[in-house]
Amino acid sequence: MAAPMQPTVRSGSSGLLLFAHGARDARWAEPFEQVAAAVRTAQPSRPVRLAFLEFMQPDLATAAAELAAEGCSRIDVLPLFLGAGGHVRKDLPALLDGLRARHPGVAYTLHPAVGESPRLVAAMAGIAVALRPDAA
Amino acid sequence: MAAPMQPTVRSGSSGLLLFAHGARDARWAEPFEQVAAAVRTAQPSRPVRLAFLEFMQPDLATAAAELAAEGCSRIDVLPLFLGAGGHVRKDLPALLDGLRARHPGVAYTLHPAVGESPRLVAAMAGIAVALRPDAA
Repeated sequence: MAAPMQPTVRSGSSGLLLFAHGARDARWAEPFEQVAAAVRTAQPSRPVRLAFLEFMQPDLATAAAELAAEGCSRIDVLPLFLGAGGHVRKDLPALLDGLRARHPGVAYTLHPAVGESPRLVAAMAGIAVALRPDAA
Repeated sequence: MAAPMQPTVRSGSSGLLLFAHGARDARWAEPFEQVAAAVRTAQPSRPVRLAFLEFMQPDLATAAAELAAEGCSRIDVLPLFLGAGGHVRKDLPALLDGLRARHPGVAYTLHPAVGESPRLVAAMAGIAVALRPDAA
């Protein structure tokens, strides 16, 4: 017997959850929305959601539930934070524990904050150097 | 008549003030210290200071006073923030107004937050894409 068709569900796919702090100022979210858009352009079949710790929607649980409903069995969580302070080291793991209890069929992988990547440090330094390209 | 020697003062030089949020967790500052170190490596004669809005030292006024004391007549202020919310749009301009009153001989240039740079957005997206390089 053939499995029922589920055209909107990509069972077993791997989703990306971009997690940012959030702020009261709506313009604050723009860089994070640009990151999500750039990933979707590079990897159009990969489910991508942007979620926020506070002030902005959706929160992590809502975005994770959407990815699970889309059939994601693996979700990569990438903190879009420059430094890894309490939000990344404490709040986010606690939120992930809650998600694991709620979606036991989904494997979450928490990655280091982007600010801990040499690639991001180099990009920030490059921006600073380019302000005064004539400086020796 | 020759000008007096001032070996520790590079009068008229252009300084860089990297401005980050700060956090209670000391490890939080590491990416920002790495950015400062990378700029010093690339531009060893350019005076560079890292300052914080809260929780960490030095604050903006202290770091700016050090650059002025080093003879900087121009200071580029680069916010190491991913999003441009209230801290970048309101707190920082207010702090700069205070610095301008305190150091009238120094010209401060406030640059956009690094998160508003396409270069940084591309770096973050690249990190996200590389988590699943096989995703289409």
